[in-house]
Parts: sequence; structure tokens; C-alpha cells
Amino acid sequence: MAERITKRSEDYSRWYTDIIIHAKLADYSPVRGCMVIRPNGYAIWEKMRGYLDTMFKESGHVNAYFPLFIPESFMEKEAEHVAGFSPECAVVTHGGGAKLEENLYIRPTSETIIWSMYKKWIMSYRDLPILINQWANVVRWEMRTRLFLRTTEFLWQEGHTAHASYEEAEQETKLMIEIYRRFAEEYLALPVLVGRKSESEKFAGALHTYCIEAMMQDKKALQSGTSHNLGQNFAKAFDVTFQDKDGAQKLVWATSWGVSTRLIGALIMAHSDDNGLVLPPKMATIQAVIIPIWRSDEEKTRVLNLTHQIYNELKVKYQVKVDDREQYKPGFKFAEWELQGIPIRLEIGPKDEQKGQAVLVRRDTGEKIFVAVNELRNKIEEQLVRMQQDMFQQALDFREKNSYEVDNYEEFKERIESPGGFFRVTWCGAPECEAKIAEDTKASIRLIPFNQSQKDGKCLVCDAPAESKVILAKAY
Amino acid sequence: MAERITKRSEDYSRWYTDIIIHAKLADYSPVRGCMVIRPNGYAIWEKMRGYLDTMFKESGHVNAYFPLFIPESFMEKEAEHVAGFSPECAVVTHGGGAKLEENLYIRPTSETIIWSMYKKWIMSYRDLPILINQWANVVRWEMRTRLFLRTTEFLWQEGHTAHASYEEAEQETKLMIEIYRRFAEEYLALPVLVGRKSESEKFAGALHTYCIEAMMQDKKALQSGTSHNLGQNFAKAFDVTFQDKDGAQKLVWATSWGVSTRLIGALIMAHSDDNGLVLPPKMATIQAVIIPIWRSDEEKTRVLNLTHQIYNELKVKYQVKVDDREQYKPGFKFAEWELQGIPIRLEIGPKDEQKGQAVLVRRDTGEKIFVAVNELRNKIEEQLVRMQQDMFQQALDFREKNSYEVDNYEEFKERIESPGGFFRVTWCGAPECEAKIAEDTKASIRLIPFNQSQKDGKCLVCDAPAESKVILAKAY
Repeated sequence: MAERITKRSEDYSRWYTDIIIHAKLADYSPVRGCMVIRPNGYAIWEKMRGYLDTMFKESGHVNAYFPLFIPESFMEKEAEHVAGFSPECAVVTHGGGAKLEENLYIRPTSETIIWSMYKKWIMSYRDLPILINQWANVVRWEMRTRLFLRTTEFLWQEGHTAHASYEEAEQETKLMIEIYRRFAEEYLALPVLVGRKSESEKFAGALHTYCIEAMMQDKKALQSGTSHNLGQNFAKAFDVTFQDKDGAQKLVWATSWGVSTRLIGALIMAHSDDNGLVLPPKMATIQAVIIPIWRSDEEKTRVLNLTHQIYNELKVKYQVKVDDREQYKPGFKFAEWELQGIPIRLEIGPKDEQKGQAVLVRRDTGEKIFVAVNELRNKIEEQLVRMQQDMFQQALDFREKNSYEVDNYEEFKERIESPGGFFRVTWCGAPECEAKIAEDTKASIRLIPFNQSQKDGKCLVCDAPAESKVILAKAY
Repeated sequence: MAERITKRSEDYSRWYTDIIIHAKLADYSPVRGCMVIRPNGYAIWEKMRGYLDTMFKESGHVNAYFPLFIPESFMEKEAEHVAGFSPECAVVTHGGGAKLEENLYIRPTSETIIWSMYKKWIMSYRDLPILINQWANVVRWEMRTRLFLRTTEFLWQEGHTAHASYEEAEQETKLMIEIYRRFAEEYLALPVLVGRKSESEKFAGALHTYCIEAMMQDKKALQSGTSHNLGQNFAKAFDVTFQDKDGAQKLVWATSWGVSTRLIGALIMAHSDDNGLVLPPKMATIQAVIIPIWRSDEEKTRVLNLTHQIYNELKVKYQVKVDDREQYKPGFKFAEWELQGIPIRLEIGPKDEQKGQAVLVRRDTGEKIFVAVNELRNKIEEQLVRMQQDMFQQALDFREKNSYEVDNYEEFKERIESPGGFFRVTWCGAPECEAKIAEDTKASIRLIPFNQSQKDGKCLVCDAPAESKVILAKAY
């Protein structure tokens, strides 16, 4: 048997870590809070990166690379920003054997260094918009870390755009959160809610932040991507102005947006089961594994012949692996590949060989389908498409089943503990009520959904007239 | 006119910098020795990364990601390694607002952190080989920096492999230097010499280092890629052993190999001219720019019609740009796109429109070819292929023309100053003679070519019997 994974029902947190360690997605490193992303995990990141990069480029963005180091004085130029990020920075004080004249922060995010460059590059409205994205590592000194979800160093992309007007910047901010939504739902099979963060949850230095939030299998929320309208805050801090068409000198408008390797954690937590990783087909590097089964030498010859015939046919279209190791039994192999999350298993035994068929087993449902060899190629395609859809639908059903409307605070406090989930409530807009919820329940306002037509009702906490409906949940 | 570039003959070093700045490949950053790679430059890196990554994967390698931080104590475990790298490291002493118990080095290269993980992952011969590559940023505190060629932070890939025997490790080391050679010659159109580094020039911690070296237009050498056989040095330092088939516990054998954003500098220096960047077609993001030319409105209609017809046909196969800006004259546009290194320019004027033709201009030679519209697609393909070959041949001819055999030290000292170039000489193998050459001329042994059949002759410096032929040159 492959190494045992703790059941979700026993210990959800250990189940998550077990999958990561046993499927060799990542490992703990000797550096506090930093992880090693192993080849199996990095392959998922490469997939994510590939899809996102294409979507970014199709919407007119280009990639660039800015320095890892940020001079201490830069961090201090935007007041909210420094207050938000400074305490969690790693600081370089020595370089080349000597003490530095000015300390360098390892970027926790790159607004400051990038806007110091935009000042050099932007003169006139003709230089706008700038639509730059960066794939990079960043460092935030987290107190409590967890593989993929919260690590001291992580990989991400950060878009930083510059615009001539608020409207353009706002359009960009919304465009990018929509791209994230589409990516999460169409590729990760991860249904997400889209909306605005409250003032207390927004990005340090932003006018406002949009986000996508997903429900994990323990009914907690996971913020999966954010897009910030930064207004003119960074343009002010770095004195970035442009000459507009009307001849006037104006401050530039900014956005930034990002997703990170945290999405790998979301993918694992949303879809996997007690047998290991379950990957939506679009995120799998290998789509199918073929496991030949035999006892006698005669059977072996027949079965392996068919196996290699099928392999040769499938490899034209899919990434396929043949597991013909002699030292392991089929059951062991099944468990091992299930653990790794390969979407489709093909079993070929002596009887299957005689009938000219293979047994197709879906990783998500365990469903077994007998498929004639000459129909395999189409059937695999069909099952991969269906699996991608089914996994999305399953996650969506789960979220809907665990989402509630409540208007009674006592009831909310009880139900957020058990059964837990997403709670749609009305809120007066006061930070005090938001803080009280956090204090009483550790839940937070995950987002304020877009397009609120009706705002009637009373605040869940203070009974004052409601300003908006919001989603409350406990979160990672 | 586009911004003027210093001529090579006037000031080679300024010519190089002018191209980078004016073609917007990179820019100086406010952080000492760090550069910003701008979108035009980063697009070249993305091309390089794409080709190399494919070659790595085709040869069985996988990608992973290890932490940016290396504990100070790790650096000290391999004696040569710490002596080589420690003086040029950036050091993090504070994190999350507190002084760290142990200082963290920003990786200058990742052998130590990676081998600390390999210790966890390698038990038996079944766990070998490990063929991992990492795309990452690294930091080396350089005293004198130059855009792309030598910067405090740079991007690179570093392969780190683990093997059961010396022979396997040696095979890997040679395989990778051959992949680098092929990449340089077939994609960058950059002819390179391949060989071994002398003891004094090898990687700190390696048994031996193989390298590829290219000649720049100022006849200096540029080391463009290295592959190291690390022997058992890092296995010893981190106590990494495996149980072999014979049951015995043995130390693991290692290699590492890397190329960096320095290759962008090589690409610029080897091929560009006084009008700006010249890119081999395989490295260009945009293959062709179409420039319509007109005076009257009637001409404009005709010319733009044909332009868009041609654009629509070409864009199926190529990345093409149309420059129909009205505020600039054709000559200005020509210069601007030449500066950017777009391989092919298509000019379409009123007379061309009448004749159903376009004027195809090659960036490398300036050659003008009149091409009938219906032959454009094939002709472009043909010219791109030819341009790639011609650029390689031109660089090769240049190197051959500037390579010499010398056996008289006085003559060498004179000629290395003027005219300069690559000098093939015989050497006794003594570090003293190598040091004397460096002291007298600032030239170094770039490499010891493979496959030396004849070793007769005397040392260029001391007249002792020669051990090998070597290539001497001044280098970046």
C-alpha cells in the first residue's frame, strides 16, 4: 500500500499536509517558514502560470522583472503601505562583506520599486497605459506558516498598471478580477465568489480591493486572488505625473493584482479526498496512467503488447504513463497513482486483452467504464471534459449546500461554529461591528458582493440600517 | 530620428549600453548594481527560457523551487564553496522586526540548500538519479556591474542532479554543456568554443567545470554557460549517502549547471550594429513590421488596404506589427524598428501597391528584396531561415578571423593588446604560468578544448613541456 493519508474526518489539517508530503508536492525546508516546491507541485504551478500568462498577454499585458531589493526609504513613502508591510519584511543589512549604508527590504510586494521606475518612464499620456506583470518570489515574515497557504517566501505574479484616469484604472481592476474568476472556475474547477473587500481587509495603500473567495472542504474560505485600485496613492508617493492631452500635468492612476502558489493549496483543499490528490484534468501534467495486469508469462506477453499499442496511440494526444513495474501488485499501483491525482487510470488484464478492451477508472468518482480499444481515444477525451465539469459542479454544490442567509446574531454565532460555512448577512458598514464579529467568532467579512440592488434590512450586529450584504466566514 | 546610438568604433562599451537603454531592454534601478529588465528585454528571456526548458525536459529533467534563503551554517559546510561565494553574498540579519538567531544568505547559487534536501530524499539507488532544474533569481554582490553581463541580482536556471556513480555524473555534465552549445549555436546564432576550465577558473566546490565561450565584437570572450561535475563534495558536506544494489552505503555524485540573463548581453554584443539591436529570428518576439507609405488620401486608402490584407495573411503564421502612425515619417519608423531589432521590415508604398508587391528589408544585411504579394509568406519564411544561418556564419567568420595560434610569449603580449582575439597556445599546466599571463596581460585561460590528440610543444610562458592547448583571451 502507498503511505497512509489521514482521513479528512479525523484531522482535516493533517489530511492536507499528508497529501502534500506523500504526493511529493512540497516539503519543509531547513529555513524557517520556507518550503521546497517539489517537481510534482511545481508542475502544477507551471500549468497555472502557463494559463494565466496566456490570459494576461491576450488582454494586452507584458512581463518584466524588477529588483528583489527595496530601499528602506522607498517602503516609507506610502504611509498605509509601510504600516501594512514593514513589520513582516526580511531585511538585508550586509552585502559583499560590509554593512550597507541603507538597509534593503526583500520585496513583500513591488509597488514601491516599480513606481520609482514608472516615474522615469512616464512623461506624457502617450506613455500610458503601462500594463506590466511580473512573475517573482516575494517574502513576508509570517508567524504561523502552512505549506502553500502561508509561507515566508512564496511565488506569485504581480501586475502593476499605470493609467491616465480613474475610470481606466477601475476598468483594469475589474478586468483582472474577472480574469482570476475565469481562471479559477474554468481551469481549477474552483467556484468563487467575487466582490469587494471591506476597508479593514483591503490592500495596504489601495482605494479598494476586489477579490475572489473559494470554499474549502472544511467550509472555510480561502482568498484566491486580489485586484487593487490604488488610486493615485503611489503616484503621489513617488511623484509620478504625466502631461495629459489638455496640456495639464496630472497624477497617474494605478492598479495592482496578484495570485500566488497559495492557489495550489486551494486546489488541493477543494478537490482532494481520503485517497490523495484529485486534480481537475486541465491541471494534470499526466492525464492517464496505464496499468497492465498479468499472472503467467503468456498473459504478460499479450497484455504488454496491447498496453504498448494503446500507449503509442494515446501518447500522440495525451501525456500518458505506463506502470509495468514487476515488483509491485496492481492494488499498490492503483493507490500510488490515486495519491498523485492522475485523472484517469486504464487497467488492462488478460480478459480485457481477449475482449479488446480496457477498464477506464475516473479519479474523482472511482467510476469504472469498460471501453473498446478503438474507442479509447475519444472516450478519454469525453471523460476528461466531463470530469472537469463534474468537479466544478461538485465544488459548487458543496458551497451552495453550506451557504446560508442569517439575520440573527446569536444564531450566526452558533452556526458559524457548527456546521460552519458561508453566511450572507446584512451589515451597517461600521468597522466596530466588523471588529465585534471577528472578536466573537473569528469570522471575517470575506467580501461585499458586486451588484447589490436591495439594501434593505438591518445590521446583523447593531440593528442599524444595513449598508450592504456581505459574506461572513472563517478563513485561511 | 530615433535616439542616436554611439558607434561601436567610437566607444564599444557605450554602444552596448545605448542599445540596451534606447531599445528599452533594461534600465538602471535605484538599487545599487540591480537592473530592471524591461518588457522588450524580458521577452528575449522568455524566449530563451522556453527553448531551454523544452530541451531540459526532453532530456528527462524536471523543475522545482528551493528557498531563496540559505542558513549561514550551510554555506560553511563545503570549504571551497564558502571561500568562493561567501564574500559576495547579501545577508539578511532581521526578519519580522526582530534580529535573527542565524543569519540568512540570499542564494548566490543553491548547491547547499538543495543538497540539504537531497539528504532527506535519497535513501537507495532507486531514488537516483535526481534530475532537477530551478528557474530563479540569485544575488552576488558585484563591485563593478554592467547591464545583463554582471548585476548584483540576476535571473538564471540552475540544474542540480544526483547520481549513483562518477560516470553517470560525468555523462550528465557533458550532456548539459552540449545542450548549452546547441542552444547557443542553433537559437542564439552564437558560435561557441567548448571545453574545460582550468583549476583556477572552475566553480568553487567542483571537481571540474565545462564551459562554452563566445567571442564578442570587440574580440573579448564571454563565458556563456557552465556545467560542473561536483564529484562527492556536496554529498560529503551534507552526508548524503545511498544504499547501492550491492547493499553498500555510498556517497552520492553530483552535478550542477547554469545559464543566466547574461546570455541577453551576449546576444546583444555578438550581433548588434550601429543602428541598434539585431536579433536572430528565433529570438525575436515580432518577426516582421509592416510600414505603409503614402502622401495623398487616395494613396493612403490603396496602401492601407493592401497593408491590412497582407497583415491578415501573415498574422496566421507570424507575429507581425503594422506601424501606420500618421505623426511619424517613414525614415523615423525605419530607424525605430531597426533599433528594436525586428528581423524583417516590409515597406508598402503607392507604387508597390500598383505592382502588387512589397519591399522586404532584412535587419542584418539591410538587403532589399521586392516580393510579389502572393509570394510574401514563403519569402518571409525563407529569409528568416537564411537570416538565422547567416548571422551564425557571420559570427563564426568573425571569430575565425580573429583567432590565432602563437608560440612566442612576447608576440602574444603584443597581439593580445592589438588586434586582440582568441589565442590558441600550449601550456604546461602550472598555475604560476597562468597567473603570470593574467598579471602581464589581463588575459585568462578561457578553456582547455576537449579532444586534444597532440600535446607536443612547449609552454608559452616557461618553455616547459606542454600539457595541453588552451584558449587565451580577455574576457567579460
